[in-house]
Amino acid sequence: MTIWPDKVDGLCFGGDYNPEQWPEATWRDDVRLMREAGVNLVTVGVFAWALLEREEGRYDFGWLDRVLDLLHEGGIRVDLATATAAPPPWFTRRYPQSQPVTREGQLLWPGSRQLYCPSSPEYRAAAVRLAEAIATRYGDHPALAMWHVNNEYGCHVPHCYCDVSAAAFRAWLRRRYGSLDALNQGWATTFWSQRYSDWAEITPPRLSPSYLNPTQQLDWWRFSSNELLDCYRAERAVLRRITPQVPVTTNFMAAQFKPVDYWAWVASGELDLVANDHYLREEEAPDSRVDLALAGDLTRSLADGGPWLLLEHSTSAVNWQPRNLAKLPGQLRRNSLQHVARGADGVMFFQWRASRGGAEKYHSGMVPHAGTDTKIWREVAQLGADLRRLGEVKGSRVAAEVAIVWDWEAWWALELDAHPSADLAYLDQIRAHHAALWRRGITADFVHPAADLSGYRAVLIPSLYLVSEDAAANLRRYADAGHLLVQCFSGIVDEHDQVRLGGYPGAFRDLLGIRVEEFFPLRAGQTVRLDDGSQGSLWSELVHLDANVDGAKAEVLATYADGPVTGGPALTRRGTAWYLSTCLAPDDLERLLGRICDAAGVPAASQTPNGRAPSGVEVVRRVTVEASGGNSYLFIINHNDRPATVPLPASGVELLSNVEVAGSIVVASGDVAILREAGA
Amino acid sequence: MTIWPDKVDGLCFGGDYNPEQWPEATWRDDVRLMREAGVNLVTVGVFAWALLEREEGRYDFGWLDRVLDLLHEGGIRVDLATATAAPPPWFTRRYPQSQPVTREGQLLWPGSRQLYCPSSPEYRAAAVRLAEAIATRYGDHPALAMWHVNNEYGCHVPHCYCDVSAAAFRAWLRRRYGSLDALNQGWATTFWSQRYSDWAEITPPRLSPSYLNPTQQLDWWRFSSNELLDCYRAERAVLRRITPQVPVTTNFMAAQFKPVDYWAWVASGELDLVANDHYLREEEAPDSRVDLALAGDLTRSLADGGPWLLLEHSTSAVNWQPRNLAKLPGQLRRNSLQHVARGADGVMFFQWRASRGGAEKYHSGMVPHAGTDTKIWREVAQLGADLRRLGEVKGSRVAAEVAIVWDWEAWWALELDAHPSADLAYLDQIRAHHAALWRRGITADFVHPAADLSGYRAVLIPSLYLVSEDAAANLRRYADAGHLLVQCFSGIVDEHDQVRLGGYPGAFRDLLGIRVEEFFPLRAGQTVRLDDGSQGSLWSELVHLDANVDGAKAEVLATYADGPVTGGPALTRRGTAWYLSTCLAPDDLERLLGRICDAAGVPAASQTPNGRAPSGVEVVRRVTVEASGGNSYLFIINHNDRPATVPLPASGVELLSNVEVAGSIVVASGDVAILREAGA
Amino acid sequence: MTIWPDKVDGLCFGGDYNPEQWPEATWRDDVRLMREAGVNLVTVGVFAWALLEREEGRYDFGWLDRVLDLLHEGGIRVDLATATAAPPPWFTRRYPQSQPVTREGQLLWPGSRQLYCPSSPEYRAAAVRLAEAIATRYGDHPALAMWHVNNEYGCHVPHCYCDVSAAAFRAWLRRRYGSLDALNQGWATTFWSQRYSDWAEITPPRLSPSYLNPTQQLDWWRFSSNELLDCYRAERAVLRRITPQVPVTTNFMAAQFKPVDYWAWVASGELDLVANDHYLREEEAPDSRVDLALAGDLTRSLADGGPWLLLEHSTSAVNWQPRNLAKLPGQLRRNSLQHVARGADGVMFFQWRASRGGAEKYHSGMVPHAGTDTKIWREVAQLGADLRRLGEVKGSRVAAEVAIVWDWEAWWALELDAHPSADLAYLDQIRAHHAALWRRGITADFVHPAADLSGYRAVLIPSLYLVSEDAAANLRRYADAGHLLVQCFSGIVDEHDQVRLGGYPGAFRDLLGIRVEEFFPLRAGQTVRLDDGSQGSLWSELVHLDANVDGAKAEVLATYADGPVTGGPALTRRGTAWYLSTCLAPDDLERLLGRICDAAGVPAASQTPNGRAPSGVEVVRRVTVEASGGNSYLFIINHNDRPATVPLPASGVELLSNVEVAGSIVVASGDVAILREAGA
Repeated sequence: MTIWPDKVDGLCFGGDYNPEQWPEATWRDDVRLMREAGVNLVTVGVFAWALLEREEGRYDFGWLDRVLDLLHEGGIRVDLATATAAPPPWFTRRYPQSQPVTREGQLLWPGSRQLYCPSSPEYRAAAVRLAEAIATRYGDHPALAMWHVNNEYGCHVPHCYCDVSAAAFRAWLRRRYGSLDALNQGWATTFWSQRYSDWAEITPPRLSPSYLNPTQQLDWWRFSSNELLDCYRAERAVLRRITPQVPVTTNFMAAQFKPVDYWAWVASGELDLVANDHYLREEEAPDSRVDLALAGDLTRSLADGGPWLLLEHSTSAVNWQPRNLAKLPGQLRRNSLQHVARGADGVMFFQWRASRGGAEKYHSGMVPHAGTDTKIWREVAQLGADLRRLGEVKGSRVAAEVAIVWDWEAWWALELDAHPSADLAYLDQIRAHHAALWRRGITADFVHPAADLSGYRAVLIPSLYLVSEDAAANLRRYADAGHLLVQCFSGIVDEHDQVRLGGYPGAFRDLLGIRVEEFFPLRAGQTVRLDDGSQGSLWSELVHLDANVDGAKAEVLATYADGPVTGGPALTRRGTAWYLSTCLAPDDLERLLGRICDAAGVPAASQTPNGRAPSGVEVVRRVTVEASGGNSYLFIINHNDRPATVPLPASGVELLSNVEVAGSIVVASGDVAILREAGA
Repeated sequence: MTIWPDKVDGLCFGGDYNPEQWPEATWRDDVRLMREAGVNLVTVGVFAWALLEREEGRYDFGWLDRVLDLLHEGGIRVDLATATAAPPPWFTRRYPQSQPVTREGQLLWPGSRQLYCPSSPEYRAAAVRLAEAIATRYGDHPALAMWHVNNEYGCHVPHCYCDVSAAAFRAWLRRRYGSLDALNQGWATTFWSQRYSDWAEITPPRLSPSYLNPTQQLDWWRFSSNELLDCYRAERAVLRRITPQVPVTTNFMAAQFKPVDYWAWVASGELDLVANDHYLREEEAPDSRVDLALAGDLTRSLADGGPWLLLEHSTSAVNWQPRNLAKLPGQLRRNSLQHVARGADGVMFFQWRASRGGAEKYHSGMVPHAGTDTKIWREVAQLGADLRRLGEVKGSRVAAEVAIVWDWEAWWALELDAHPSADLAYLDQIRAHHAALWRRGITADFVHPAADLSGYRAVLIPSLYLVSEDAAANLRRYADAGHLLVQCFSGIVDEHDQVRLGGYPGAFRDLLGIRVEEFFPLRAGQTVRLDDGSQGSLWSELVHLDANVDGAKAEVLATYADGPVTGGPALTRRGTAWYLSTCLAPDDLERLLGRICDAAGVPAASQTPNGRAPSGVEVVRRVTVEASGGNSYLFIINHNDRPATVPLPASGVELLSNVEVAGSIVVASGDVAILREAGA
Repeated sequence: MTIWPDKVDGLCFGGDYNPEQWPEATWRDDVRLMREAGVNLVTVGVFAWALLEREEGRYDFGWLDRVLDLLHEGGIRVDLATATAAPPPWFTRRYPQSQPVTREGQLLWPGSRQLYCPSSPEYRAAAVRLAEAIATRYGDHPALAMWHVNNEYGCHVPHCYCDVSAAAFRAWLRRRYGSLDALNQGWATTFWSQRYSDWAEITPPRLSPSYLNPTQQLDWWRFSSNELLDCYRAERAVLRRITPQVPVTTNFMAAQFKPVDYWAWVASGELDLVANDHYLREEEAPDSRVDLALAGDLTRSLADGGPWLLLEHSTSAVNWQPRNLAKLPGQLRRNSLQHVARGADGVMFFQWRASRGGAEKYHSGMVPHAGTDTKIWREVAQLGADLRRLGEVKGSRVAAEVAIVWDWEAWWALELDAHPSADLAYLDQIRAHHAALWRRGITADFVHPAADLSGYRAVLIPSLYLVSEDAAANLRRYADAGHLLVQCFSGIVDEHDQVRLGGYPGAFRDLLGIRVEEFFPLRAGQTVRLDDGSQGSLWSELVHLDANVDGAKAEVLATYADGPVTGGPALTRRGTAWYLSTCLAPDDLERLLGRICDAAGVPAASQTPNGRAPSGVEVVRRVTVEASGGNSYLFIINHNDRPATVPLPASGVELLSNVEVAGSIVVASGDVAILREAGA
């Protein structure tokens, strides 16, 4: 259940504010500029540990007092950090046992950030003490709107392989398995003479002569994600105790970070609201516009459809990619409003002022090195004004009728080594399905495989390699309610990464009415044709139609026209249960998902009785959920380099211009329109 | 001298059987299915250490007793492992000094397999104790047909760089060199101030600021191969003592494994029979059909032309390649019979049942995850039937009149660093020569450079960079008896990797009547033309014709038409001694080898008075060596995707169909025919 | 101030002579051959530590006595090494704390060379002791011409990360910064909670979770270069004390080695002459002829325009590249004379005899493996004769009117991580500018950014990312005297790698009359067009013309015709100050530099009133600086594969042939002509 920082009026707007990097004389200027831009919330203190605790137990809060007072005078609210993301050099020197160790046994050293073993008792104790000192000092500060615990948990040290971590891993395994026999069973240690006869024999999956036990690896991912959650829990507990009324969160990196199972984090009930950091990867992602939408959709789904906070993104270039592309004019604002369209009730940036020194000085800020007579500053100020005009969308929810199953455990398991093809990557498959829907103007939620799916007309399951029996049953049950597409290499193993025997995909064989006898992964770069003209890549399978337990047989919708299983079924359907045994080319996948959505009666947000939005125009609807009626907001984002005429399903008021429109609206190149739809 | 497991009737057929991975209830079913498929031999216990020795000295043989009794009841013979390939976790915890260390000083940890330093006295003692316990327990078991020591020695840890290994290396060097002066001389330590003044100063070739002493590296390869052989020797001694009548072997990885000098192993007299593991590398090898033939030819040569046992290959995909291609229909059987054609008297698979869990669960088995209603199982059963029909070929020998020189020491030395070109790789050159013969239908043996060559009409020497004076003399002498082709960068250094001065190739200069003044390696991707239309790559040389010691001059057969040595000799011949100073394109090399074979009077097995087998049809002959007459078997393997009409040198009976044929035979696409030739 | 080894008559000629690798019987032959080839100087003893000091303090000079006496008898002078480049195995065993450690914490081990931590007190003491012993023994030897300290300092171990080095780094930082506050300020440690509260907390930039503090990294480069200089200083001090009259040097690797700041070394006054090693990188450098010229130009510039010594290059192939291309006929001599053209007063090779064993045995020598009936030996002998004919050029200086700013600190800083584009590499940009001038026949010097520039008509500043305020002022002042081209990403940060705020490039904004608002690095492989037809790559910028402090405005010479800043200025000019905001294609850069040189009145050496030397003909002039008149030598090098007719600015005598020429001269393909120009 989301607890929003209610002290902030309207949508949140601001960024990370690190005044300690600047002379105190600059601070008043900062507040003046924040007000000018409409900033109403700033994150303070994320990397201030070294300045707040000068040596163990000796605190220096004076400077932070002055910063918070100044912000309060200026009417700016504060998302106050617990400052535990980067222990200071004195801490590392005093507790060298807290230095993380790599899989190869290499010790990590000071000079960057996040230098701690997540299982280190010394680190955890120090972090809690600092959080307590800060909460005690500032719990009643009038500027305080929310707590920001740590920072991007695990981003640099998701796993530590030291002996302390090894002991913690063993303790976690004892709790998970209860007995060594259960662990030996779960890990299949009869293979390769791996049977453990004492808990003390178990180590993290360190460098080893050959492929490590896959279940050991999988449990290591689980353990590591949980250790980070435990770090968070410990800090949150003290904040909750001292300031029960102040919401607490940390910043996720949803859709861009494999090591942390954010489903487990939100399920823990420890987050009062979901906050996310998102950065474009222009050269890495196939289409950064869609990748941004994916991140928004996933974060919203983690927030159970409720509002969420974009806690970091960039005004322009970042500094950590090989080539850090600057944003083109208008892109800062368009990216920001795209997040709002996907459910964000706030837009924050890293960081307020671009640093003069340090590792991130070429990361763009709201105030760039070149000052305020700049494209960036003008767009920041315009965005602030836009967000003020959008205050009424706060709290509305995004409408989605299709769900894509997303699961971190399945991601971890799919990408373990020694699989049929190293080319079948989880995020690629997720992205392919999500992007195909995006191109058709269909908004999707992401769901955990065991989630309640009753609200959806269709559910997509891209390569869900690992699925527990409970989750599999949940997905199978769903087929009674709506259409369901299972893609190749799904449902193969149970939660111990052990294969379901008797023909793949064990978890869905009966549901789909098929039996896969053998995988035929394709060569690097190889493609296969299907007889419906589609093209597959990466993967193919020898599929048989099998008499189903309840007698209904699957039908073959397409067969392989060439490749290693020529003539065999490629795409099948049994009632509402579809099976795709390869990875389709983007256009072909889009056509297939369109067909399924049509069968399921899923409308596109971009579709109206008067026609459809042109290609490259993103359309998303947010609706309020008030008892009586409620509002509906149509976000229209024109990604094209020419104006677009977009037919409207209803007349209404364009909020940014406050102009009434009907029939259709012309959206300039790169521009965004937001329509409060008249009751249809 | 080969000692065959005579308890097995006919050709061996079966695979690795790991019952410990399955509930005991499955075992009876296993035996039933084995009998159904015609299995007569299974390898048991390879990775059973952890289950057989539960803690140090506490054995649990009960389950294995039951397995062996069940197999015996079913008439299945057992290739029983000493189970020493993977020490259990308790062993590593108790003897952490046995954990291997990488060249970079990184310790290796449990979780996979083969976690031991080959020089570890604790490991060696434990392995011998276990072998002794097993031999004592099962030496008289009626199912026992042979011993399987360890498994694929060195496959993951061919070298260990720990301090124990360092001491063993020093001891080995003392024995090899006798004195430090001899070592300093052999290693050329006057270079770079490397002179050793105490044995204790010598270390393994660990991570170092620059290129390591090449002779130190070369001796390290020699030492490491020998340490593994010593591990084998120790286990074999105890088996021999307890069961003198039972043949002992281990599984080689001939043609795919660089670190072990299998010539030295067979020369040691410690192997009663030669057994090999072979896996296709579809995406890596230029032509996996030929690569399989190469492995068969090399293994047969290691067995001195006698029968050998294919101890592992796969029914379909493996799990350790980036993309693990499944075998196409018919390929399992065709691959298997191709090994038999090349001299195998048995065909075994890894493994019986595909595992449910663990690192190799996607390695295909004889019983796949999908069960017996599968392509794989049906082909396994058909192969079993085929092999029964082929019982009479057992013990026959493959006829070969050409030899290719193969030497692990030369391989190691050629691929040391700081050479004229890093692109000249040993296996590439070996493969090129072997494949050119394969395409011409000529079967070749491999020979050690110091071997008796009197049985061959032609000998090929691909880039034999290092050759000892004795071996060089052997090869030179051969030129009186037959044709000999020396390829570039052969005979350059002695056994200490020291250059023979006065012009290359020092070992063969007089024989060839040439003097190479300087190497001219080619740029990446560069090719040169020869004036006979051939194309060279990787390498060229400035070659002079030199008056030979006995006066006979070489003639120039082709010169370089372009490139860095335009106009210079590229291909020369002095009597029966040919010299090729570059790496020819495949077709050009095939033409050259054809010319040499013609000159030497070597017939192709695929050649008959009535014409030649079509391209893509592999023809190999096995002959029995009985006193009176003996039989001759022609294996005809059609690798093409259409039927082939193959002219026959003699009439005879096709053994798989038991049909008499004469003149020619039509072999279906992908099919194999085996003709018992009527006395010609 | 250069002190030349005056004992050597004429130009120096010879190479590294390592007699310890050969039986003593060979030595007399060596001297005979040296005399035959005209060798007058050899470097002896570089890697002889292990033979000179057999155990700690026990010296064996007998063999070296005999070598030096033999050389002296033959009239060969000796560049005697202090032999400290590679400690012997006994040293490492006795002082294991001297073994270097990598950034990842890996210890380095014996077996190659240069195995010492540059900060090791044990190594430094041992090196000084050995230098003292050698100087004491041979200081008065009549063959001794100069001292050769160590060898290619830092080539394999430029940085050591051990604890000893860490302590030395801290001590160096204390001296540099004086106080922790100053260090915290300089390193911007308010960022990421890095504030140091005790000197003991500071470590080298070892493996760390994320990007290391950039100023910490930069200071580490400074420190490491200085530690090596301190090693040199210590040895030089003892040599100076014992033999004050003998010049001392060490061999640089200018233009090919990033870790050592050779400007700082020559500024230290510790080198009596500048010596350089240069090796072709045929496959790596875009044009190895120009790369050789660049190395010569840089080395001459390090020698302040005075004579320098080519102490190592190769007669043909080296051994450390992936493919070591042999030199084509004539190339040995042409390369050598090209160095002389660029100011070398001596040409030496590594090494005299190609080794039989060891890691460098495939490195070519003056006497190759194949002996003296070889292309190499004949060219060596011819070169010796040529150099004798060129004796009179000794001491003349190369004429250059253009300077390119080169700075190691800027190189280090530019290539730190987390920058806008990882593709903008320092050497690439330097090479591009130098090569463009080379193609136009314009000879350039290299200069330190703070150097006196008054002698130049034009100064080029390729991507001088870091520049101190003093150096920036020096460069700005220069614009009053001549033309100056600043290329993108110059003048961005101060010596602490902290950004100059207010718009880029902070150090040159006013000078250039522009303000860069934001960087727009290009995608991998992306190019942009300029409206003058030029093409840019890697980088673009949003540039504004700003009113300059003194009112004069810049003009736009070219704008971006496409790409992310379409329509914005790409090339600007304010008076003599030009700014280029991208990286031009080679031809376009050549055109631009031609335009600037024309504006500056810089003539090409290849230009005469009668026309210009054909493309591919390199023309360089050396002039003597005698009081009365002096001579002028025109070096003409024909790199083409056909003869070239080269117009001459003056008549004169061709020195190699001693023929008078006038008007023009025909230079054969690959040949070199050297004209003593008649007073024009």
